[in-house]
Amino acid sequence: MDNYKKLTERFQQLHHYGHLLSIAGWDQATMMPAKGNDARANAMAELGGLCHRLATAEEVGDWLAAAEQETLDNEQQANLREIKRDIENARALPESLVLAKTKAGSKCEHAWRTQRQENDWAGFADNLKEVVKLSREEAQLRAEKTGLSPYDALMDLYEPGMRSAEVDRLFDDLRSWLPDLIQTVQDAQKSRPVVEPQGPFSVEQQKQLGKHAMELMGFDFEAGRLDVSSHPFCGGVPEDVRLTTRYNTDSFAESLMGVIHETGHARYEQNLPKAWLGQPVSEARSMGIHESQSLFFEMQIGRSRSLLKHLAPQIALTFGEQDAFTPDNLYQYYTRVEPGFIRVDADEVTYPAHVMLRYEIEKALVEGEIEVDDIPDLWQQKMQSYLGIDTAGNFKDGCMQDIHWTDGSFGYFPSYTLGAMYAAQWFHCIQQQISDMEAQIEAGDLSQISQWLSDSIWQKASFLTTPELVQAASGEALNPQYFRQHLENRYLHQVR
Amino acid sequence: MDNYKKLTERFQQLHHYGHLLSIAGWDQATMMPAKGNDARANAMAELGGLCHRLATAEEVGDWLAAAEQETLDNEQQANLREIKRDIENARALPESLVLAKTKAGSKCEHAWRTQRQENDWAGFADNLKEVVKLSREEAQLRAEKTGLSPYDALMDLYEPGMRSAEVDRLFDDLRSWLPDLIQTVQDAQKSRPVVEPQGPFSVEQQKQLGKHAMELMGFDFEAGRLDVSSHPFCGGVPEDVRLTTRYNTDSFAESLMGVIHETGHARYEQNLPKAWLGQPVSEARSMGIHESQSLFFEMQIGRSRSLLKHLAPQIALTFGEQDAFTPDNLYQYYTRVEPGFIRVDADEVTYPAHVMLRYEIEKALVEGEIEVDDIPDLWQQKMQSYLGIDTAGNFKDGCMQDIHWTDGSFGYFPSYTLGAMYAAQWFHCIQQQISDMEAQIEAGDLSQISQWLSDSIWQKASFLTTPELVQAASGEALNPQYFRQHLENRYLHQVR
Repeated sequence: MDNYKKLTERFQQLHHYGHLLSIAGWDQATMMPAKGNDARANAMAELGGLCHRLATAEEVGDWLAAAEQETLDNEQQANLREIKRDIENARALPESLVLAKTKAGSKCEHAWRTQRQENDWAGFADNLKEVVKLSREEAQLRAEKTGLSPYDALMDLYEPGMRSAEVDRLFDDLRSWLPDLIQTVQDAQKSRPVVEPQGPFSVEQQKQLGKHAMELMGFDFEAGRLDVSSHPFCGGVPEDVRLTTRYNTDSFAESLMGVIHETGHARYEQNLPKAWLGQPVSEARSMGIHESQSLFFEMQIGRSRSLLKHLAPQIALTFGEQDAFTPDNLYQYYTRVEPGFIRVDADEVTYPAHVMLRYEIEKALVEGEIEVDDIPDLWQQKMQSYLGIDTAGNFKDGCMQDIHWTDGSFGYFPSYTLGAMYAAQWFHCIQQQISDMEAQIEAGDLSQISQWLSDSIWQKASFLTTPELVQAASGEALNPQYFRQHLENRYLHQVR
Repeated sequence: MDNYKKLTERFQQLHHYGHLLSIAGWDQATMMPAKGNDARANAMAELGGLCHRLATAEEVGDWLAAAEQETLDNEQQANLREIKRDIENARALPESLVLAKTKAGSKCEHAWRTQRQENDWAGFADNLKEVVKLSREEAQLRAEKTGLSPYDALMDLYEPGMRSAEVDRLFDDLRSWLPDLIQTVQDAQKSRPVVEPQGPFSVEQQKQLGKHAMELMGFDFEAGRLDVSSHPFCGGVPEDVRLTTRYNTDSFAESLMGVIHETGHARYEQNLPKAWLGQPVSEARSMGIHESQSLFFEMQIGRSRSLLKHLAPQIALTFGEQDAFTPDNLYQYYTRVEPGFIRVDADEVTYPAHVMLRYEIEKALVEGEIEVDDIPDLWQQKMQSYLGIDTAGNFKDGCMQDIHWTDGSFGYFPSYTLGAMYAAQWFHCIQQQISDMEAQIEAGDLSQISQWLSDSIWQKASFLTTPELVQAASGEALNPQYFRQHLENRYLHQVR
């Protein structure tokens, strides 16, 4: 076990450095004044470079080869599998390509921040072409090492084991019923007018309400915080999870549900197996599984009739009584469906359309079937076909809206919809086991639900592969019918 | 210049790591929830250990020896001198002693937090004995390497070039007139009643007032922040300076003046020479010079009649009109003299007595002339003799009040009073050059004063030795008569 032990010590060290990078990154997004940025970026790049060298050093490869011959128990074997994955991912690219991609990515992202505002597709496309060129090189190298297709080799970074053949199968199913559902729901909702909550809603009151919801959802404030950033995220470290939100004094609804969403991520992180923290096997299973936790908290619980019944009095107490704050109106308000330009503002019914569109485009782009210049037309066609929306010439609310492609994070988008599907599957499963689940939610008691998530997902961390995890948790493989059932129950039949 | 260049690259790297440690340390004191502490301490220890190894590595010694033969300009030579100092300080101790001292120090400090509250001298003394034993070993090793006496070898870490013979000379002078001055001022103040400001003073209003004062003092909020911590400090990095304060809703006075004090530290850090950041020569000259900046802003400017005239309307605007808020009453309030138990609460007249007492005790302790068990009696005698205060049996407000000795920071205390003396000397000097200085302060215009500090102190960083810096700035060596004049002008003659 000597070589295995050396590997675990190296990863413990990397975990310590990762802690400091994570807190520095959180600080950058929430606390840091503008003039601190260059020094911060340089400091983080220095330690990031060291981490890369420590993970790819020659001795690490030797330890790995030798450790694979050692006698290890099941948990150690799982840890070794994840260690190997991290090392191979880190070693797949020459340092020159890593540096070139980082550089092209930060140039593209930095310029994008103003180009997007100015709807400057031509300027953006110039930078994006370089990012795509380097991402194709990356995909090619990773494909050679893994035997996967280029796109699958990238997606595997975020969804270990997931393949585009499987994503196609899931998305083909979606494509067969989603556009109709969107249309039907919209028609039905026309006859159900919603009373709009009337602002202003003070930041202080929204913060109180958000913290109340976080406590209800089981967030441990002795092991984390809530702060403000321009793009909400869940950061920090498992021992100290840092959530962020943003406040709009005209509307409390987005921040409240955003906080509940991030709390789902946070509970996963706060409840990873403590004894293994510092080792790769203790980390969250995949981006899709992570998203399944945030969407479970936001979509399955947060926007349900039951939870909104529970929250309604607290909302009225916080902001004062309004007609909009009846449980039924809050439910109508929080389940409105409306096709729109922007993915991050989309409701859960139209959201998958945004993801499918991006998946189709980025896959073709990585595989060399299309070029950057083809993106706007494809975007226009697909938005038209999936959501009936015209984005011609409106790049800033079209193909320039997301940050993901600016730094070459191709292969990430499917995780969002996989997460929504997993979340529906977990919910179905819990419902089978807890007969009065909706009553518990309405009473604000999430203890049994949390226990299931803890036993089935959080404490499992990366001990199982994703398919094993899904099987063990729910007794079957990922099955998109639960997501369809969930949407139909809520949006056609108005139950849940 | 190859070897010099290698050294600068190594120190640039250490600066980057230091940045992350500094921000993580700030976060620990201001933001971090309780359960994050173990992971944070481990992460910081990991990177701290790496920094120590990088500064003491064998190749660094080789580069240093070779660089001393290279042709360097004056600034490079100054940088090499500071690099050499850092390396030699880091190499003076074997790693086993560093670890043993860190461990004994954190054990002693941790236990002290409760022992102090419980007035448990016996328990504290047990731990302190181990810290003293290891500090004596450290002092002995440093003395052997530097040729200094053991105490001087420790003080040199904080005040490079300062020796106890010089401190004795300065403190002998102080001792000859300070006790009489304290008595005379107290007698005189009895006939000048002060109107107490009436609380409560909300945290939000105090924060606004503090930020107003920071802006007045020239703090750059695009390169720093103000937050809350239980022990106020000035941290962060030169590009992003993080000040803290604490608020007491019964009294705004301490927080306001505390913020002005920390702003003095902050302006020094924010105005170190940008082109050299990352190199040791760009760092602040010494703890005493640093304290001269905070005390310049707090004592020379902040508590002056002129600045309080300027601030009085803002104070009344913030908290509402009160009789206490006349300029004259604020001046009386902020210049009250009263011997007390606690150093950090002391006024500027009695403060040096607290420092002399600690200096005398810690010097004798390090040099082996007394033992830990002798401290309480010595404390009692000296408090009686300098301030007429009885501390018998009251350890928590006596020899257990400070954090410095708990982790073995012997040699630091003189810096406070050296700083007060330097500050008075700077003020005298500026007054010679700016004829309407008091009028400028009263108008809230500190630009000419800041320019002098920037030219004479901030931008000089560590390019000069401390004696050279003092000579260049003021035309003479440190001269304690300016401090005496300052106290007599303010406290006997009520001018300034």
